[in-house]
Amino acid sequence: MTKQIRLNAFAMNCVAHQSPGLWTHPEDRSSDYNRLPYWLDLARTLERGRFDGLFLADVLGVYDVFGGNPDAALRNAAQVPVNDPLLLVSAMAAVTENLGFGVTCTLSYEPPYPFARRMSTLDHLTDGRIGWNIVTGYLDSAAKGMGKASQNAHDDRYNVAEEYMEVVYKLWEGSWEDDAVQRDKARGIFTEPSRVHRVQHYGENYTLDAIHLSEPSPQRTPVLYQAGTSLRGKLFAAQHAECVFMSGPSAKVIAPRVAAIRALTAETGRDPSEILMFSMMTVILGRTEEEAAAKHAEYRRYINHEGALTLMSGWTGVDFSTYDLDQKVEHVHNEAGRTAMDNITHADPDRTWTVREVAEHVGIGGIGPIVVGTPEQVANAIEDWVAQTDVDGLNLAFAISPGSFEDIVDLLVPELTRRGIYKSAYAHGTLREKLFGAGRARLQAPHPASSFRPALPSAIAAE
Amino acid sequence: MTKQIRLNAFAMNCVAHQSPGLWTHPEDRSSDYNRLPYWLDLARTLERGRFDGLFLADVLGVYDVFGGNPDAALRNAAQVPVNDPLLLVSAMAAVTENLGFGVTCTLSYEPPYPFARRMSTLDHLTDGRIGWNIVTGYLDSAAKGMGKASQNAHDDRYNVAEEYMEVVYKLWEGSWEDDAVQRDKARGIFTEPSRVHRVQHYGENYTLDAIHLSEPSPQRTPVLYQAGTSLRGKLFAAQHAECVFMSGPSAKVIAPRVAAIRALTAETGRDPSEILMFSMMTVILGRTEEEAAAKHAEYRRYINHEGALTLMSGWTGVDFSTYDLDQKVEHVHNEAGRTAMDNITHADPDRTWTVREVAEHVGIGGIGPIVVGTPEQVANAIEDWVAQTDVDGLNLAFAISPGSFEDIVDLLVPELTRRGIYKSAYAHGTLREKLFGAGRARLQAPHPASSFRPALPSAIAAE
Repeated sequence: MTKQIRLNAFAMNCVAHQSPGLWTHPEDRSSDYNRLPYWLDLARTLERGRFDGLFLADVLGVYDVFGGNPDAALRNAAQVPVNDPLLLVSAMAAVTENLGFGVTCTLSYEPPYPFARRMSTLDHLTDGRIGWNIVTGYLDSAAKGMGKASQNAHDDRYNVAEEYMEVVYKLWEGSWEDDAVQRDKARGIFTEPSRVHRVQHYGENYTLDAIHLSEPSPQRTPVLYQAGTSLRGKLFAAQHAECVFMSGPSAKVIAPRVAAIRALTAETGRDPSEILMFSMMTVILGRTEEEAAAKHAEYRRYINHEGALTLMSGWTGVDFSTYDLDQKVEHVHNEAGRTAMDNITHADPDRTWTVREVAEHVGIGGIGPIVVGTPEQVANAIEDWVAQTDVDGLNLAFAISPGSFEDIVDLLVPELTRRGIYKSAYAHGTLREKLFGAGRARLQAPHPASSFRPALPSAIAAE
Repeated sequence: MTKQIRLNAFAMNCVAHQSPGLWTHPEDRSSDYNRLPYWLDLARTLERGRFDGLFLADVLGVYDVFGGNPDAALRNAAQVPVNDPLLLVSAMAAVTENLGFGVTCTLSYEPPYPFARRMSTLDHLTDGRIGWNIVTGYLDSAAKGMGKASQNAHDDRYNVAEEYMEVVYKLWEGSWEDDAVQRDKARGIFTEPSRVHRVQHYGENYTLDAIHLSEPSPQRTPVLYQAGTSLRGKLFAAQHAECVFMSGPSAKVIAPRVAAIRALTAETGRDPSEILMFSMMTVILGRTEEEAAAKHAEYRRYINHEGALTLMSGWTGVDFSTYDLDQKVEHVHNEAGRTAMDNITHADPDRTWTVREVAEHVGIGGIGPIVVGTPEQVANAIEDWVAQTDVDGLNLAFAISPGSFEDIVDLLVPELTRRGIYKSAYAHGTLREKLFGAGRARLQAPHPASSFRPALPSAIAAE
């Protein structure tokens, strides 16, 4: 069978997400992000297009590197205001049956005990359609919101994350046996107490002595997403992630990352084909080439350079407000800034890029490639991209929302389906079963979560 | 105009809530608590009955005082398993237009920065229908889940709570001015940065230096519920609460509490008629007296004594597993246990109560009075209760769910409406406007939240 391409919609509980300025486009509705109808309509549209999931980004802080304050972020709605993504899920689950939800939650600022209950609750309410994008936090402004002078050092955050994962695995996988809940009305027994186990954890960062508060949910552990790009991040992904999300403008940037994570995954003993790689892409579709090009040109008129560079500054830590828009990228003197810019200019290395041009690339959908054309042309580009990078799917960013997703559903999905590279119907079962096959609702060995099951008494103290 | 009676439905994201054993009744659906349809149907039913709100209790721990372990709680589903209540709200908001949501969140285990964003998010998504029941936590088992040996001492928890309130008021009320958000597509300005203020808080328990992440929501601060019964708790309620929830089996218990809180409220400078008192009540309705009595007798057959005493043990700290069910209440030798039992027996002081009888009272709907009868009889009892206690409304517990609420909507609500003591239509606007009148979407002076508005520069550091 031809390799099937997976599609996630990439969005955030904020205005415009990764297309600063495009919220001013007359057809964009993303400034209604704070109203339920916007999300219910989006969820219905995505399910109509058989999207695997809606991937919701999040930051618990503001982009205040650009100019040294949050003014540019606020003015341009560059991911601020930003509301909590987790609270959108149950409403969207109520109007869909198959769409998955991959939600970003920053573990650094969320104690594991209530967090584990939150995810279990959503796994129940969605009938097993919840995923968690594990993030350790990257904005100093978020740390300041939590009463710290700055965030923890990068590798230290991953050490904390490792222990956090151990605690939540113990709660999700180890506390309640599968047959603990009897729901036996005749005998009057809801739960058989001997099959519920106390989790006792005394670690460097977390201490816990409690049973998990939720009964086992369809997936127990939510589907685990991760987006690490550093070596330590890749290692974390190789150990824990079931889906990896990455962004880069060209196959040249993405292909080695995919290969590196698959290799690391194999080293951990896991099947490297069973860690699904999603790379970011923005597609702009028209019924004809001219229509697509005209749409692209129109979107470009709404790009907000300051907003785009505000995001770039937050991502890289370099204050791009100190650079002239027409400065050539090779003259950006800051090392980190150069690297970030080079990362974008890989998309077209023969061209001489200016800061403005980089902002205009990032200004529609972020760092991924922008593919413009007819459904046939875009499908060709996607097939080439998959062949060159070995990704399993795409996280599709939007120029305007829900317009970009409606175009994908109405124009691109039929073409991908016709080519046999996209599902013609959803598979049954939980999100994990839809992604990995029937009977795979729960994580299996050798994934580390499986080692915390009650069958292994070393991990769990029986009551 | 005759005093209008407010109605909240009292429930929890768990099985049976306060009617241990009743989940085995063939008509009870509360063991579907972990599925969305259960909650969507309940929300629709409550809105059909013009309920002011759905009040969702929560505990972040298990009832493990009875027998010194969680076995009885687990066996009888005495509020365990228990899922997160906050995640139910957006789904129910999507199928209703007027129903309010009062959600219990334990501030002790939730950092104020992300919590403030959670509530703002829900206030947006519900169009201003969110309330927060402020709880400082009362179960040692919850503390153990958070890595503490036991919970903080009672008064210390209230000191922490005072500071917590200050931080969230600053975020909700003080960070974004009303006209900060422009959404001006023509000028490309989403937010005017000069109208967004950094919250700087350096306190004993919390440190924060950040802007609030959410733009102003319809109510800014959610409607504040509180249930304090200790002197310190009553004082906290008098300062902060807009709605107070209390439970006791007789007017004799409730009336002095209402009077005490109104008196304390007046001392803080607030209008004592503007703190709404809700007391708990369980009503069992029939079209005839015989039908109601038969229904009550049938429910009683499903009472689970062990489950009821498990809850009593958790609430009081007394292990009731050490008492014989047929022991007379006056022979309960533990002081705290006696007090708790006496509290119930106030409902009928001339009777000689046994532990079993107390369990049977608590076993249907908890500590409130149980009123059984025709719509006319129950409406009479409610009018008497209001006259005797001066409460503004009732938190109606269920025997079975949604059956008890369907009976209330179909039988009692028409009778209360006919008498002119219950609204014939919802008022317009946010939950706060529905409760306190048009134009009252936001908290007003002298409520302490209002002192954290940007107009008062002492409370907020301008950027």
